[in-house]
Amino acid sequence: MAFSSETVEALVEQFTKLPTIGRKTAQRLAAYVLKMPREEVVEIARALVAAKDKVKNCAICGNVTDHALCAVCVSARRDPSVICVVEEPNDVMAFERTGEYGGVYHVLGGAISPLDGIGPDDLRIRELVARAAGQLVLAPELAAQAHGFGDDGSSPAVEEIIFAMNPNVEGDTTAYYLTSLLKPFPVRVTRLARGLPIGGDLEYADEATLARALEGRSGV
Amino acid sequence: MAFSSETVEALVEQFTKLPTIGRKTAQRLAAYVLKMPREEVVEIARALVAAKDKVKNCAICGNVTDHALCAVCVSARRDPSVICVVEEPNDVMAFERTGEYGGVYHVLGGAISPLDGIGPDDLRIRELVARAAGQLVLAPELAAQAHGFGDDGSSPAVEEIIFAMNPNVEGDTTAYYLTSLLKPFPVRVTRLARGLPIGGDLEYADEATLARALEGRSGV
Repeated sequence: MAFSSETVEALVEQFTKLPTIGRKTAQRLAAYVLKMPREEVVEIARALVAAKDKVKNCAICGNVTDHALCAVCVSARRDPSVICVVEEPNDVMAFERTGEYGGVYHVLGGAISPLDGIGPDDLRIRELVARAAGQLVLAPELAAQAHGFGDDGSSPAVEEIIFAMNPNVEGDTTAYYLTSLLKPFPVRVTRLARGLPIGGDLEYADEATLARALEGRSGV
Repeated sequence: MAFSSETVEALVEQFTKLPTIGRKTAQRLAAYVLKMPREEVVEIARALVAAKDKVKNCAICGNVTDHALCAVCVSARRDPSVICVVEEPNDVMAFERTGEYGGVYHVLGGAISPLDGIGPDDLRIRELVARAAGQLVLAPELAAQAHGFGDDGSSPAVEEIIFAMNPNVEGDTTAYYLTSLLKPFPVRVTRLARGLPIGGDLEYADEATLARALEGRSGV
């Protein structure tokens, strides 16, 4: 059964297109929108379209930004010789929340997933290799803003590349593929530790996690 | 920590204004929007504004509709002498899903809640009383469409009014208030049964529900 208004029903349909929103939640959201002041609804609509129209990808790392370069890549306090490779902009946020990482990022825009039709060419892999080779060339006006870039637009030397893709099949496949691509360069390639999540309960850890934690045990 | 794009951050803020959407979900939705084709995002934005601009309340029952009257109030298969009083349009959908109800509705638009500043005047109560009195007058062109209305615009006689507000303090307060208002009219006033939900587990029923189920027990 649907709302007796086709317009409301159309809005419910639109909401269900978004992830994590099922039909029931979509109906609740639609009912809420009907009670909101018009100007607030217009504000949401504007923000949606603005996200498509104004947001760019950083010319260096691919992270979302309103400018040509993102805040991390222009910061003089970040070490451009260490690159953390992540799948999505959300992952950058996760690292920034820890406050523990002082290097820069590279956002691939996903992971290799043949089932979803996502191959290496759909990801920002060529750009990562260029950075590893110290051969990412920026226009001089951008290079002047970017931390660590030479006046001639040449990219800073890279010492370490940290793989921080998701710990699943797609993430591991991507890491495997990147490892072979990065082999020719004098760059240390590392990846995030795997083991028990902090605060987790050993009893409830799945077998794969527990096996990895055992395998990667360290002296105390 | 926020996205490195203010525009994306603004979209996250807008999403969190909606119910059931926390910051984490809002970030996930925003990331998804960034990957959607622009025309699909525009479609969502349009649907939002259309919901505010095109949706009206039925001139008889107050339910949402794109026209002057809702589908239930114009249907010749519905009995206009039985009115089910609900708080919100979502509640009408819940009844329609059962396929068991053949009467019409009255959507109050909420429940009396002094804590939220919602008094009787904020709800469609005057209209309900007019219907109970058979004195809701419609413009002749609308009355011609509305099932059960006289050619002079007079509303159909009402025999039963079923209270179907939410089984909580606000719903009960509203029912109490309406009961006294409806007393002068020769209308049978009923309310939904309260007891154990079907498929529920007696062990997990809360005390209030169990007490009501005991109180309202019937012969087998």
